[in-house]
Amino acid sequence: MGRDKLFSYEIIAECPHTGARAGKFYTTHGVIEMPCFMPVGTQATVKAMAPFELEALGARIILGNAYHLYLRPGVDVIEKAGGLHAFMGWDRAILTDSGGFQVFSLASLRRVSDEGVEFQSHLDGSKHFLTPALVMAIEEAIGSDIAMCFDECTTYPITEEGAKEATLRTIKWAGLCKKAHSRRDQALFGIVQGSVFLSLREYCCHALVDMDFPGYAIGGLAVGEPKALMHEVLELLNKFLPKTKPRYLMGVGHPLDMVEGIARGVDMFDCVLPTRNARNGSVLTSMGKLNVRKKELKEDFSPLDPNCSCYVCRNFSRAYIRHLHKAGEILASRLCTWHNLHFMLDLARKARRAIIDGTFPDLLEHCREVFGDEAD
Amino acid sequence: MGRDKLFSYEIIAECPHTGARAGKFYTTHGVIEMPCFMPVGTQATVKAMAPFELEALGARIILGNAYHLYLRPGVDVIEKAGGLHAFMGWDRAILTDSGGFQVFSLASLRRVSDEGVEFQSHLDGSKHFLTPALVMAIEEAIGSDIAMCFDECTTYPITEEGAKEATLRTIKWAGLCKKAHSRRDQALFGIVQGSVFLSLREYCCHALVDMDFPGYAIGGLAVGEPKALMHEVLELLNKFLPKTKPRYLMGVGHPLDMVEGIARGVDMFDCVLPTRNARNGSVLTSMGKLNVRKKELKEDFSPLDPNCSCYVCRNFSRAYIRHLHKAGEILASRLCTWHNLHFMLDLARKARRAIIDGTFPDLLEHCREVFGDEAD
Ligand SMILES: [Zn+2]
Ligand SMILES: [Zn+2]
Repeated sequence: MGRDKLFSYEIIAECPHTGARAGKFYTTHGVIEMPCFMPVGTQATVKAMAPFELEALGARIILGNAYHLYLRPGVDVIEKAGGLHAFMGWDRAILTDSGGFQVFSLASLRRVSDEGVEFQSHLDGSKHFLTPALVMAIEEAIGSDIAMCFDECTTYPITEEGAKEATLRTIKWAGLCKKAHSRRDQALFGIVQGSVFLSLREYCCHALVDMDFPGYAIGGLAVGEPKALMHEVLELLNKFLPKTKPRYLMGVGHPLDMVEGIARGVDMFDCVLPTRNARNGSVLTSMGKLNVRKKELKEDFSPLDPNCSCYVCRNFSRAYIRHLHKAGEILASRLCTWHNLHFMLDLARKARRAIIDGTFPDLLEHCREVFGDEAD
Repeated sequence: MGRDKLFSYEIIAECPHTGARAGKFYTTHGVIEMPCFMPVGTQATVKAMAPFELEALGARIILGNAYHLYLRPGVDVIEKAGGLHAFMGWDRAILTDSGGFQVFSLASLRRVSDEGVEFQSHLDGSKHFLTPALVMAIEEAIGSDIAMCFDECTTYPITEEGAKEATLRTIKWAGLCKKAHSRRDQALFGIVQGSVFLSLREYCCHALVDMDFPGYAIGGLAVGEPKALMHEVLELLNKFLPKTKPRYLMGVGHPLDMVEGIARGVDMFDCVLPTRNARNGSVLTSMGKLNVRKKELKEDFSPLDPNCSCYVCRNFSRAYIRHLHKAGEILASRLCTWHNLHFMLDLARKARRAIIDGTFPDLLEHCREVFGDEAD
């Protein structure tokens, strides 16, 4: 593609009744049709999946994680391999999370200052000090198509004072990240923090928009707050984030949350739940969630989801997959992961189609009916 | 294929210098080119592999296990699914081991009599009584292409008296199995026992050949006896087993043991080691074994085996696969299993080709050089 299109976001269609939009985002490793769901490949692999399978599922972009890859195998290894794409054999787009979330959720003995975060590795207890500039160096070495700013991710609940401090630091770090970032073939996204405090969210949003990032992420949501609050924040940001840039709701990937996010102008989603739940035998179907380990499925020879056309549903029965789970077989994780990723990727594609066709509100209504009663 | 060819063994070529032969065996689910290696799918799945991958690897026949499937998910489930082929989504050939080996190695509190074996399940301690007739009913319900007789598998070392008792019982049970077996689309193989006692082996062999099975397995070898003794037994049986029937050396699958077996007239092999070792990071290469977890591979960006053309070696490096193993990722098991199965299936194909081309002794010599110094 022409250099001029790189990291531009093109709106294809907008829903007249909601904030949903269909678009295209141009990266070094291909065009990403949005809205999109991004399978999570924390440790340089989407758990249980091979790259050719992700391609077959139509995934255009997957996630990597700077924190995890920095600790293991180490950035030098990935750099010598020629970057993460070459290292893991994936030549479509990759987005790397900065590690902000992981430093604040996984690592121990944190000491946070305006300069950065000192922490101990969750793997071996070794000490590290991550600064915005170092995180940029890590993400550039990894060579993802989209890098995230280093941010301070807050938990829920948090006091307004605490949220304010983290938000101001996130803004400061965003500036330092932007200054340190130099790879032309990599887009750097800002991350809006501010917990559930609308004034903080608005303040953070304006500060980041002033820095003119090619895309914006929304962090610190879906961390335990009521759905109504999450929706309020999304509606607020939908007003203030530039229409011509992609918006990414971090860590959100329950089917209904995704569609509700799309209705509020969000374009990109990721979540470990579809893959993690799959490994525990919980699958997403057109009728809602299903636990494959249930005794009642022992002689159920129908597919996981009779309305699904994925490889798994075309070839295997609930009874067989239940057996694999009970027997602790790797194929159990593989098949359920495959199906769940198909479900999420397909739901994003359906949403896109519906936005273009003008039927998005129907899809939203349908998802509310099927998934409305569920917790994660 | 014509009914007349079903379960016939056709010799294509014979090595003039060794006992090696290349042939074809006709089953209900396709023609099997021999010599062949059979991936082990104990619990209705070849661990870490999907059926389409086994097809891509060129596997024509895989193993199932009557003992394991009888205990879980239960024969009724498999029967209702339409048999094991339908249950696991595999439409090439399947051989089922009778469970003799498992009853004597896994189950506890065994009581063996001429009628059968009473034992407790290794899964839940439940009590079961397996008789030759019941094992036949199980294997017929499973619907494999090749069923094995129920036998008494001896450990090593064992007294000649103990081996004799087990051998006589194995012969008796073989007769009962043959009488009870009725599926026309399933071949029933006899199993020669007799430990390392040549007179017992010869006696058992003659007794089973008199019963005229469509194929013969050699059990109770590679259970700890010196290689020289194993080879002696194979050489003996190569003299007395009918040339026009396939011979299957049970549980043997170290590369060199397979080629040495082929040199002594064996056609079929199976072994859990290529798949089990793969999950522990031990892979087979054209230069011998390699442990992928080794520190020295941290920045080794060459493939597992530079002389291998499999999907794994074409797409991933040792450094990446080492990382996956260290991180405990499922893909680690998948990639190493894929490669190891490719290695074994390819080695069997190479042996076949060499027998046809008249170069089998060279291959044998080469395998002795590469794998001669290794233990399992
Ligand atoms: Zn499906
Ligand atoms: Zn290979």
